[in-house]
Amino acid sequence: MIERLCIIGVGLIGGSIAKAAREQGLVRQVVGADADKVNLDKALALGVIDQALEPEQAARDADWVVLATPVGALPSVLRAIKPAWSAHAVYTDVGSTKCSVVQAFNAVFGGLPVNFVPGHPIAGAELSGVEAADSGLYRDKRVILTPSSSTDGAMLGRVEAFWTALGAKVSLMTPQHHDEVFAATSHLPHALAYALVHMLGKKDEQQEIFQYAGAGFRDFTRIASSNPRMWKDICLLNRQQLLPLIEELRQELAALSALLEDEHAEDLLAYFSAAREARQRFLSLSAAASSPSEAGA
Amino acid sequence: MIERLCIIGVGLIGGSIAKAAREQGLVRQVVGADADKVNLDKALALGVIDQALEPEQAARDADWVVLATPVGALPSVLRAIKPAWSAHAVYTDVGSTKCSVVQAFNAVFGGLPVNFVPGHPIAGAELSGVEAADSGLYRDKRVILTPSSSTDGAMLGRVEAFWTALGAKVSLMTPQHHDEVFAATSHLPHALAYALVHMLGKKDEQQEIFQYAGAGFRDFTRIASSNPRMWKDICLLNRQQLLPLIEELRQELAALSALLEDEHAEDLLAYFSAAREARQRFLSLSAAASSPSEAGA
Repeated sequence: MIERLCIIGVGLIGGSIAKAAREQGLVRQVVGADADKVNLDKALALGVIDQALEPEQAARDADWVVLATPVGALPSVLRAIKPAWSAHAVYTDVGSTKCSVVQAFNAVFGGLPVNFVPGHPIAGAELSGVEAADSGLYRDKRVILTPSSSTDGAMLGRVEAFWTALGAKVSLMTPQHHDEVFAATSHLPHALAYALVHMLGKKDEQQEIFQYAGAGFRDFTRIASSNPRMWKDICLLNRQQLLPLIEELRQELAALSALLEDEHAEDLLAYFSAAREARQRFLSLSAAASSPSEAGA
Repeated sequence: MIERLCIIGVGLIGGSIAKAAREQGLVRQVVGADADKVNLDKALALGVIDQALEPEQAARDADWVVLATPVGALPSVLRAIKPAWSAHAVYTDVGSTKCSVVQAFNAVFGGLPVNFVPGHPIAGAELSGVEAADSGLYRDKRVILTPSSSTDGAMLGRVEAFWTALGAKVSLMTPQHHDEVFAATSHLPHALAYALVHMLGKKDEQQEIFQYAGAGFRDFTRIASSNPRMWKDICLLNRQQLLPLIEELRQELAALSALLEDEHAEDLLAYFSAAREARQRFLSLSAAASSPSEAGA
């Protein structure tokens, strides 16, 4: 049982952790801090947290601290809670970029504390804020933990058990490998969706194209409705991995254009077919993880 | 009442038209033709059509003919049904590119017959084949008709009424404007989804990245599961509109890369925010058309 769970950043992700942990009977008390005071008041009013405090006060005397702010805010949060740091508490985070978390700790603590277990739940939505928090958000979702060689093994085990209790499937990875994988499967698609909608948004202002867009466009661009501040942080902090992938995609698009330009019908069919097969492979993998309805399609 | 509805190409789109027209009591008999004999047999077995025939026999004596093959097959279909062409029947199609349809008629008929009403229902799915046909597919969806100045006004009115009876909202447009709008909102996103998944599929073979991809990736890439043969045709036939848009997107990605490279955090935030606002504008427009659940988000 966690006596005092502290959530720094009580948005969709942090709020969902608080609600899920409470629902599973894992915590006695939940305290929260948030730079957005309106959101923090809502978290209190909704009963997601029992007490709203400043970060240092929230972290003080907590035996479990979850850092759930946007990744760009981590250095300032670490500076704020450093005076309250306890060797006996478990610290973990939910950041979408993991090398940047190591850098933030290096800058503020001179290294990664043994009782900090870096984590990243692969869950979320284009929604944000505590009102979107959902105790079922992590059910059948993956959580990646990226411990270092000095991370306390017992604390790592407790964080694994915590996520498992919330219904998630835990994998371990190095921060470097994590950032490489998620640059490809998450950060690149987000950057691309923002770029496409940015470009088409300018066209729409001139000639109203959006009113004729269908369900395919809706799904394809859903992630462009994600929180821009959070994604600005993620793309900047993981830009070393992301930039070469954007360039690679630009070359991929040039190759596709060449097939169209030269009317290579059979090569184009082979290209689209290979892409479709790759997506079916993804669907069968994700069906194995969480049996979504689409996999049967 | 349509006495004999002929569907050439009884797949998702053609099959759904047959089912919906029957459900609305608009037709007495439905006959069908399909280059895929297995699919045609299924259409008969499922009762989507009453009779399976060769294209010319199917079109003969029909008073309403729907051309619902992939757009690339249109020239050969037109040649096949030309001997059975009747001045009294209504002909329409569902092709996703409309200038190519004009070209196909010019090539085979030397012009657009007055009783042909070109159409494009903005509906579909990554599914294909008659088994996916759904009588509700067109409910609250848009249908674009692209008549020429010589199209028979009464026949145009009947096709409008037909689609309205199926629950769709009909708009009129020139073929040129249609192809420009849909290159941006449909063909470009499809090309992009295929390109991204093609690129990541090669990476996945080397280091298994797909198993960690989440719901955002699933939605973003859904259209890459679309029928490759159909999309090969669409992208080739509308390449004059599509190619400049792919190039424009490559430049958009280069501009985004420059913001990342130079760590222009505020500009990046403004960029993502503008994209998010553009998508919210799309959502509010499409909510006005069909009240989807996401619009409230």
